[in-house]
Amino acid sequence: MSKMVTAFAPATVSNVACGFDTFGFAIDGPGDLVTAIEARDKGLKITKITGDEKRLPFDVKKNTAGIAVNKLLKIAKCSAGVELQIEKKMPFASGLGSSAASAAAAVRAVNELLDLQRSENELLSCVIESEKSISGTAHADNAAPCLLGGFIIVRKVKPVDIISVPVPEKLYYALVHPLVEVNTQQARQAMPIIIPLKTAIQHWSNTAALVHAMHSADLKLLARSMEDMIAEPVRKQWIPFYDDTKNEALKNGAFASNISGSGPSIFAFCDSEAKAAKVSEKMKAVFDAQKIPCSPFYGRIRKQGAVIVE
Amino acid sequence: MSKMVTAFAPATVSNVACGFDTFGFAIDGPGDLVTAIEARDKGLKITKITGDEKRLPFDVKKNTAGIAVNKLLKIAKCSAGVELQIEKKMPFASGLGSSAASAAAAVRAVNELLDLQRSENELLSCVIESEKSISGTAHADNAAPCLLGGFIIVRKVKPVDIISVPVPEKLYYALVHPLVEVNTQQARQAMPIIIPLKTAIQHWSNTAALVHAMHSADLKLLARSMEDMIAEPVRKQWIPFYDDTKNEALKNGAFASNISGSGPSIFAFCDSEAKAAKVSEKMKAVFDAQKIPCSPFYGRIRKQGAVIVE
Repeated sequence: MSKMVTAFAPATVSNVACGFDTFGFAIDGPGDLVTAIEARDKGLKITKITGDEKRLPFDVKKNTAGIAVNKLLKIAKCSAGVELQIEKKMPFASGLGSSAASAAAAVRAVNELLDLQRSENELLSCVIESEKSISGTAHADNAAPCLLGGFIIVRKVKPVDIISVPVPEKLYYALVHPLVEVNTQQARQAMPIIIPLKTAIQHWSNTAALVHAMHSADLKLLARSMEDMIAEPVRKQWIPFYDDTKNEALKNGAFASNISGSGPSIFAFCDSEAKAAKVSEKMKAVFDAQKIPCSPFYGRIRKQGAVIVE
Repeated sequence: MSKMVTAFAPATVSNVACGFDTFGFAIDGPGDLVTAIEARDKGLKITKITGDEKRLPFDVKKNTAGIAVNKLLKIAKCSAGVELQIEKKMPFASGLGSSAASAAAAVRAVNELLDLQRSENELLSCVIESEKSISGTAHADNAAPCLLGGFIIVRKVKPVDIISVPVPEKLYYALVHPLVEVNTQQARQAMPIIIPLKTAIQHWSNTAALVHAMHSADLKLLARSMEDMIAEPVRKQWIPFYDDTKNEALKNGAFASNISGSGPSIFAFCDSEAKAAKVSEKMKAVFDAQKIPCSPFYGRIRKQGAVIVE
């Protein structure tokens, strides 16, 4: 029988209002499973993909898991035969870091299967490479929390410089994924190339304040610092009933709410599990009323990133 | 005999590389003294100014201490007679928050003298008002650390939202003030009105990382996060031998260096007092060689802001 290893990688929320391309966190919700199997024939192959409604490519040069693992094998100078089986357990183009999750689970599994002993930064660079190949820019605000867990500052992508920030005990997220597709590339291309210095200053004051809020468990400051003058104004056009949903969250006890990544998922922060549960239901109800299918989630920021499960 | 109160307010370093208009800290170096004296005649008067080479106005509508105290009396609805005596103990237009220091010492002294019991935020708003009147924009990155002490994030000026960040035990500054004048207004007007989003993202990643570095006493991360793509490239043109001085600091043990405020003062960070002492001398030597008078300072970030001394 062939040796095989399965890894799980979580969904992630990136940007977090003021921290476009900088902040991201892992959630204790859905994620992807990737199984890596030793194969006799050299080279990498994807032999099975489930949960993708037949939309993901089997071509390892086009599939994010394939791209990331090929990079890993190259770094490790390894020519072993590997077979990947991908179980998508989270939606595409949802703003939950789906592409990063498959890639992170895949490199975690292959690193273990072949005992490559690559560092976390090396594994991360493989996931970032795959993100770049599909979105056009190297960003790590999904890749880093997905692989490493927690709440992350991406200080730099090249060379990679990632910081893990402490998470307040009482911080809970609520999140909805309405079944609307947002084109990630379009959402990225719509971002302005230049912004007013004044706006930039307000954002860097807020990212500084947000990190202080996390360290000092000051949820009121966290709420105040979660302003978004950059991405939300541009991207909310592609999320129907965005303002209604955000308002519903804030009205029902959330202290902040914003787009998850490039959307359409919308997240909110609450100071108790009960509030997060209620807020996720109230947000879902907005889409229910419009007959738009919508999945609600709530819970805590996940400490672990991509882990071996079998 | 009339009642009188004297307050001291420290010099401050603003911007701190990545945090233009956002970060500032007080230093345990020079500062200003302001004495407030109860007067029989109603209204505010400045009766004595020393150490200013006769360059500061006695007109309370033009002097920063006068502007700040007039605002304070207005907020407190107080029409008492007050006389101010200002002892400038630090240089003008030096990039060390000279205007904020006189204003902060003045409001601290008058608040005490007349027992006005205004909150720190109210006093701060008076100092910000005076900063606005002389520089054209309301900024608090000198005013806040000067009044309150410590290392400060200015999250917002209106309404004022100020955060005090913990300071690592081993952090020391070195600083030189070369006798060159920089026009603060010109230095501000030279700043770009728009900047690339990419540059802005790098800055807000760095301000986030810098705050994490302060909380976790990670001086290596502090060093990495102190990048300045905004102010330094524009403003160093007005500081002769800026690059030489910065290089000399880094060569002699400083882990970061940048312009203090709009200059011409230049500061550096070190991880020991001995290094800071050496670095300040080496920086001074660059100006000595050019026969430019230069004052060196070194020490710790000052915990206290403006305080009553008599």
